[in-house]
Amino acid sequence: MTSRDTARVAQEKLASLGDDAVVISLVADEALMALILSADAAGATAALAGHAFVVKDNIDVAGCRTTAGCPSYGHVATQSATVVERLVAAGAVPVAKTNLDQFATGLVGTRSPYGTPQNPYDPSLVPGGSSSGSAVAVAAGAVSFALGTDTAGSGRVPAALCGIVGYKPTRGWLSNSGVVPAVRSMDCVSVFAPTVDLAWAVAVAAGGYDAGDPMSRRAPVTPRATARRAGVMSAEDLERCGVIPEIVAGYADACAALADLGVELHDIDIEPFLTMGRLLYGGPTVAERYAAVGEFVASDPPGLDPTVREIILEATVWSAVDAYRNDYELRSAQRYVDETFATVDVLVTPTVPRWPTIAEVCAAPRATNTSLGTFTTFTNLADLCAIAVPLGEPCAGGTRPPMSVSLHAPAWCDEMLVATAKRLAGSDGPATLPREWLTLAVAGAHLKGQPLEWQLVDRGGIWLGTTTTSATYQLHALAATEPPKPGLVRAANGSAIEVDLWGLSPTAFGDFVQQVPAPLCIGSVELADGRSTSGFLCEPRALEGAVDITHLGGWRRYLAEHRAQQQQVQQ
Amino acid sequence: MTSRDTARVAQEKLASLGDDAVVISLVADEALMALILSADAAGATAALAGHAFVVKDNIDVAGCRTTAGCPSYGHVATQSATVVERLVAAGAVPVAKTNLDQFATGLVGTRSPYGTPQNPYDPSLVPGGSSSGSAVAVAAGAVSFALGTDTAGSGRVPAALCGIVGYKPTRGWLSNSGVVPAVRSMDCVSVFAPTVDLAWAVAVAAGGYDAGDPMSRRAPVTPRATARRAGVMSAEDLERCGVIPEIVAGYADACAALADLGVELHDIDIEPFLTMGRLLYGGPTVAERYAAVGEFVASDPPGLDPTVREIILEATVWSAVDAYRNDYELRSAQRYVDETFATVDVLVTPTVPRWPTIAEVCAAPRATNTSLGTFTTFTNLADLCAIAVPLGEPCAGGTRPPMSVSLHAPAWCDEMLVATAKRLAGSDGPATLPREWLTLAVAGAHLKGQPLEWQLVDRGGIWLGTTTTSATYQLHALAATEPPKPGLVRAANGSAIEVDLWGLSPTAFGDFVQQVPAPLCIGSVELADGRSTSGFLCEPRALEGAVDITHLGGWRRYLAEHRAQQQQVQQ
Repeated sequence: MTSRDTARVAQEKLASLGDDAVVISLVADEALMALILSADAAGATAALAGHAFVVKDNIDVAGCRTTAGCPSYGHVATQSATVVERLVAAGAVPVAKTNLDQFATGLVGTRSPYGTPQNPYDPSLVPGGSSSGSAVAVAAGAVSFALGTDTAGSGRVPAALCGIVGYKPTRGWLSNSGVVPAVRSMDCVSVFAPTVDLAWAVAVAAGGYDAGDPMSRRAPVTPRATARRAGVMSAEDLERCGVIPEIVAGYADACAALADLGVELHDIDIEPFLTMGRLLYGGPTVAERYAAVGEFVASDPPGLDPTVREIILEATVWSAVDAYRNDYELRSAQRYVDETFATVDVLVTPTVPRWPTIAEVCAAPRATNTSLGTFTTFTNLADLCAIAVPLGEPCAGGTRPPMSVSLHAPAWCDEMLVATAKRLAGSDGPATLPREWLTLAVAGAHLKGQPLEWQLVDRGGIWLGTTTTSATYQLHALAATEPPKPGLVRAANGSAIEVDLWGLSPTAFGDFVQQVPAPLCIGSVELADGRSTSGFLCEPRALEGAVDITHLGGWRRYLAEHRAQQQQVQQ
Repeated sequence: MTSRDTARVAQEKLASLGDDAVVISLVADEALMALILSADAAGATAALAGHAFVVKDNIDVAGCRTTAGCPSYGHVATQSATVVERLVAAGAVPVAKTNLDQFATGLVGTRSPYGTPQNPYDPSLVPGGSSSGSAVAVAAGAVSFALGTDTAGSGRVPAALCGIVGYKPTRGWLSNSGVVPAVRSMDCVSVFAPTVDLAWAVAVAAGGYDAGDPMSRRAPVTPRATARRAGVMSAEDLERCGVIPEIVAGYADACAALADLGVELHDIDIEPFLTMGRLLYGGPTVAERYAAVGEFVASDPPGLDPTVREIILEATVWSAVDAYRNDYELRSAQRYVDETFATVDVLVTPTVPRWPTIAEVCAAPRATNTSLGTFTTFTNLADLCAIAVPLGEPCAGGTRPPMSVSLHAPAWCDEMLVATAKRLAGSDGPATLPREWLTLAVAGAHLKGQPLEWQLVDRGGIWLGTTTTSATYQLHALAATEPPKPGLVRAANGSAIEVDLWGLSPTAFGDFVQQVPAPLCIGSVELADGRSTSGFLCEPRALEGAVDITHLGGWRRYLAEHRAQQQQVQQ
């Protein structure tokens, strides 16, 4: 299929949904053709070639109106948002702008003059918001993925209610240039997709520093690649948070699945996180919404959602003194977050405490909305990244979405977060390394299970598996080393020697190499598959008095034979 | 001298100054004895043993009143501020609380009911503020050093007017626990000292993460250790900023001195920095002052300075919306700062544009104050560290302070900033490395001046000098290497071989080692002085076909002889 066909098929599927509330506008022919040309220019092997996607209507697509869910606010964008541009450059084609809670102010999906997109499991349930249309379009399979935004949970709550993956990356990784602000210091572009893998691929393609967005941040090197320790909630805490029994049970299953994967579970106190979340709704932060669209809303244009209007205009009661004091409170609360993530790698919560009906929302628009965000509102305030993943079958015989569990991790630990989500969702590949990390081949005391393995584990090293060198090495058992060590040397009459590969951050690598004692050293080692990696070698003088054990093929075999010989001697 | 004698002598000197406006209160006997006992417990070899210091009276000292320059605000502190505790633990003794512009609101030193400390060069000049008493006490030699605070320049302006060093470290390094807030998100404890070295030693002793202070930050590893490129102002820009000719001339001398030290000078546009500074004075940020002491000031207590009162009570006009918009503006402005510091390592400015008289300040209290902060107000907003250093003799025949130049650098580049300031002040030692950096011994193509030196320079490596290995190494000219390379090997019948030492950050080190091509490798090398360092060695097979050149003592000598031989052949 060409991009043109992909786009046409996607637009047809969107039309055939029979739900006018999902899409606010299709990308029209002329604009679409320009986007298709750009996407095609990326070539057939581009990361997202052949993917059609939809864009929440608070994100600009060149040639389309951006309404933010308010018709009278609408204006035609002359340029696409940076994230859209980057996705098109990776081969994907945006085909429609999707419905949302007006000005991204809501988690329900009902606060829009364009109607309420239909929940895929039960039309009496809300679809979740604010990125309602994006989530429903992905759940329906009309497009590969969708862009949303997520300030208080708008990228995760609808994922939970529509049974798909909702990924809110670290704030400042995906540019906000060309996005209508909600709470500008907390806004974050998010991704909806059917799988964790695709959500990650989209974020990688869309992300990156943007000097034009004052909220953009440069990614540091992150220290960890897989979660070993998860912070979990007690059943009592879940109940106190109003989590319904069905979701409590699903949460227990998710925790058990993590434990089965070898992740340690640690009970944590969720209350400080919830307190932090309340700072976003109850306090002066709402003035950021006013700073974004307040003057427009105050001018009483047509098409305003009454709840959204009420929320935004309340902002004027707060003074600058209130705002700064709120900021101090936030910073104090951040200390607890820091402490928590010093003891666990991820925090695990349900994504939503329940599945509210449209009727419930109508009866109590603001209270229902607030409770829906129980486990999502704190995330951006606490500077975390988070991902909501569906687990198992839809609940209640298919009339409710599947259990959605959310993993949260500190800013810039996205790769670890997503790798853990993949394992939990059962689509795990081999362990992967952060981009800047280095590999080290070890042939002796640093092999997995050997006495010096801890030197790599303590430095955050990740064991990548066992392989062999190319058939050009000799292994010698060195004289007078404690613990006993071999020396690997390259030689014309060599053989393939067993090595373990470890991944290390550049800092850990540098620190480790500095500690390598003579006569061992670190050089370039050729592997059986032709790759080169850093690895243990030895100085020439090390071979004095050493025993050539090349014929055994590796240190483990040597140790086993050596032990067997000693046992014979003792008998 | 015991700590007790040190403290007594310092208190006597303070008394003999004959200036009642320098000190608000001496640390009284009982409190002093407790502090002396703690300081003595550090032992005679502690970093600051034998040093007496004074503390700005907005910083708590256990058992003393903290007034922040307002008698009716005073309360006795039960515990010392974290910075004071740390300095005492390093052996130093605080002996007095010093005068300041009330609530640290001012850069002049005249806004205090306790009077105006006398400028050491001319009593008609202001001493600078807000840390006026601290600066005057150090300039008079009554104490070794002093603590100040610096939000808009309060740690640097008085240093310039009193002819001493004023160092404002990176915000969040020195704890604000036990410090009366001024603009809490921007406040920073600062150090006054006669020398750059002592100021640095004090900051190192006082600094470090404090979980109890929400503004405290953890220090990352910083990438650079010496400034190679300085951003400087044009004479036109200086004039436009109201810098008087005498200071323009002194600034030119300082830039010339930097150039003589091998620092590249780059013209930069100062205007965006000045714009940023204006955000601190002209906008809603003043609400942070209200958040700190506004309710107290509004209750109209006795002893308020009228200018300070006026400034703080103005804060109530600003709304939360204004505050957030101000924050957005600040973040946009930060982009220019980032761009500037991508091209230069330090920014060089005068510390003050002129030396105002008390009469001038009385005539125009706020305008004179604002102009004094021209080159200091932006520093904390832009998240920079800065140091003000006096250069040369006092101006105007001793009736004016010496030229004070300020160096500014990005957050956490303090070590580079201070090292540069030391070189400029003429008290430079050998190049020093940040704590986490590693050393690498090179013996061939990476020697200074050799073809692969750039691989270390490009990675931010710092050349530390030339030395030799212990007398246990051989050097071989390897066969078929391009560029030609030697191999260093340890051997019983060895000799001392010339090596260069380079400093590298752990990241740069890891990255470099990963690139080392076979048959070279990195191992532990013993130096002539007995130290071990990482360094270049080679694999055993490298010696096949190699020529032993150990007798030449090093690669440089070999290249010289080799070249001479070739020239003979050509003749």
